[in-house]
Amino acid sequence: MEPGTVRIAVDLLGGDGAPAVVVDGALRAFGADPDLHLLLVGPPEAADELLGVLHPADRDRISVRPVRRGVAMGDDPRRVSRTETTVGAAVTAVVERSADAVVSAGATGATVTAAVLGFGRWPDVRRPALVATLPAVHGPVVLLDVGGSLEARPGTLARHAALGAAYTRVVHGIAEPRIGLLSVGTEAGKGDRARRAADPVLTLASLPAGAHYVGLVEGYDVAVGDRADVIVTDGFTGNVLLKGIEGAYAMAGGPPASGGAPRAAALLGVAGTVVVCHGAARDDDLASGIALAAHLHRRGATAAISGLLADQARTGHPTGPGSGAEGSGRADHGADQRTEETP
Amino acid sequence: MEPGTVRIAVDLLGGDGAPAVVVDGALRAFGADPDLHLLLVGPPEAADELLGVLHPADRDRISVRPVRRGVAMGDDPRRVSRTETTVGAAVTAVVERSADAVVSAGATGATVTAAVLGFGRWPDVRRPALVATLPAVHGPVVLLDVGGSLEARPGTLARHAALGAAYTRVVHGIAEPRIGLLSVGTEAGKGDRARRAADPVLTLASLPAGAHYVGLVEGYDVAVGDRADVIVTDGFTGNVLLKGIEGAYAMAGGPPASGGAPRAAALLGVAGTVVVCHGAARDDDLASGIALAAHLHRRGATAAISGLLADQARTGHPTGPGSGAEGSGRADHGADQRTEETP
Repeated sequence: MEPGTVRIAVDLLGGDGAPAVVVDGALRAFGADPDLHLLLVGPPEAADELLGVLHPADRDRISVRPVRRGVAMGDDPRRVSRTETTVGAAVTAVVERSADAVVSAGATGATVTAAVLGFGRWPDVRRPALVATLPAVHGPVVLLDVGGSLEARPGTLARHAALGAAYTRVVHGIAEPRIGLLSVGTEAGKGDRARRAADPVLTLASLPAGAHYVGLVEGYDVAVGDRADVIVTDGFTGNVLLKGIEGAYAMAGGPPASGGAPRAAALLGVAGTVVVCHGAARDDDLASGIALAAHLHRRGATAAISGLLADQARTGHPTGPGSGAEGSGRADHGADQRTEETP
Repeated sequence: MEPGTVRIAVDLLGGDGAPAVVVDGALRAFGADPDLHLLLVGPPEAADELLGVLHPADRDRISVRPVRRGVAMGDDPRRVSRTETTVGAAVTAVVERSADAVVSAGATGATVTAAVLGFGRWPDVRRPALVATLPAVHGPVVLLDVGGSLEARPGTLARHAALGAAYTRVVHGIAEPRIGLLSVGTEAGKGDRARRAADPVLTLASLPAGAHYVGLVEGYDVAVGDRADVIVTDGFTGNVLLKGIEGAYAMAGGPPASGGAPRAAALLGVAGTVVVCHGAARDDDLASGIALAAHLHRRGATAAISGLLADQARTGHPTGPGSGAEGSGRADHGADQRTEETP
């Protein structure tokens, strides 16, 4: 666990087991990270349950933003006019600088919508992507989209390739990541109409972080690695595949020593840090989602990824690790992130 | 291994490791099954390699159909006029009753095309499906399509549900199989456009073998089971998922005790028995593909499945295990299978 205070807004009503599982997960994360502050967003009695078991000295690391049944509650009930979801209130807390990142195990669609409305999308990103990291033989494999959107247009796949390249450089420190397009075979021309259309688009695509496109890869490569560091697919296929790998590890009696299928994914393409947990998340899944959000914030991942993408858009050609672009510290990254405020 | 002579036409040139891997696989299968006869379709020198290592007494269980570089070779070279692929020649051997079933590890598209041209499709089947059986906690899970076609039209998914139901009844002996539609969540409405369109079609679909539709399932359910006996998806998603589960078992240090991901799949929807092996098949994969083809022939699976589908089409409502339809022994099943001879 890295140093540095970080404040995570947690959606108490997200997920099948909410709020109990979320409370338990928050407690686990809280105990593991002394610099972690939590903003609990949801019914106050669920937050009280968590506060009740804490040592009084720890309680100042917990804040509560009461939201009940989708309606925000102010001190003066006459001022409550707009309906607000818990995940929407969590996003608002980050926009208002009361928190640094959002974690929710609620419906992905609702989380994406709240994040797009609250944070705005990055330039040229129409559809934010959920990105998951799987352990593989020679290091991590980054898979996206695992359910942020469910379509497979060539432009979306190419944009997601760029998001995945920058994420892999910033979060996993992989220079010049190899990008693969998931299909049903590795020879050129393999795949359905969407893949056959996307393959030449990706071949010509300008990618950030010195990334290069290595062509088609298969489902096997997502689990085992070797062929690509980043594997791009539509959110339908990615979600099904991720859950299938998770099921196979459950069947095999447990994940490999290098780690199992991830149960939390980062949302990429919005100007804020958001982590989505599996709807059937257990408390340890919530805790790992909170830890991922804290890690992303401490790395400055959202601004750094946005910066790599902005550099690449400005130069029009790939930004390699030797180009110095990553260390340029451009002051307008924050502004770049907010140029598109409406969905 | 069940009794009964069975003759399998093996495509010596199919797969990445052909012909060596195919020869080794055929030898394995041959040694394990004393009632197995093989028709080796391909270059005579590859067949000679297999014949050379056999005891002379075993050689009468091997026949050879020489096909070289895609051109059929007759005794008189002047009579060779049409080009013929090895898999096409293997299908022709079954049509001519020189063999009972075809096994190929070659390109799936070529195998499907050869099977459709040679055998014809079953009535109402536009797109034959590849069906794979995975081991799960409480019995097998049948997944289709794993790559026969790559599209996801509602009518195709519904037809494949019927094929999978009949296959599961006949091959795995599961009465009233539960049919699930693969999606990204289990609540109604989850999924991409194709799934949202297919869900109501499947709800209303008349299915054979007493099958019933249980709604949406997830990738996890394909590996672990419990929710459905038959899981229907498009061939792109199914292929990616099957290979992902295979990779996860490789990562986890081996498959569960109940068996790993299948490396051979049956082609359903054509009036003949065809098994497709993974293009990267090893010799034991080829051997298991040959064993699957032998099993399907000995069970009379192709005629029995076709019969269940014909019964269901005639009555217009589901055929339950108590209806007696399976034991009716209709004499025209064979004719039913050949009513559509052109692709």
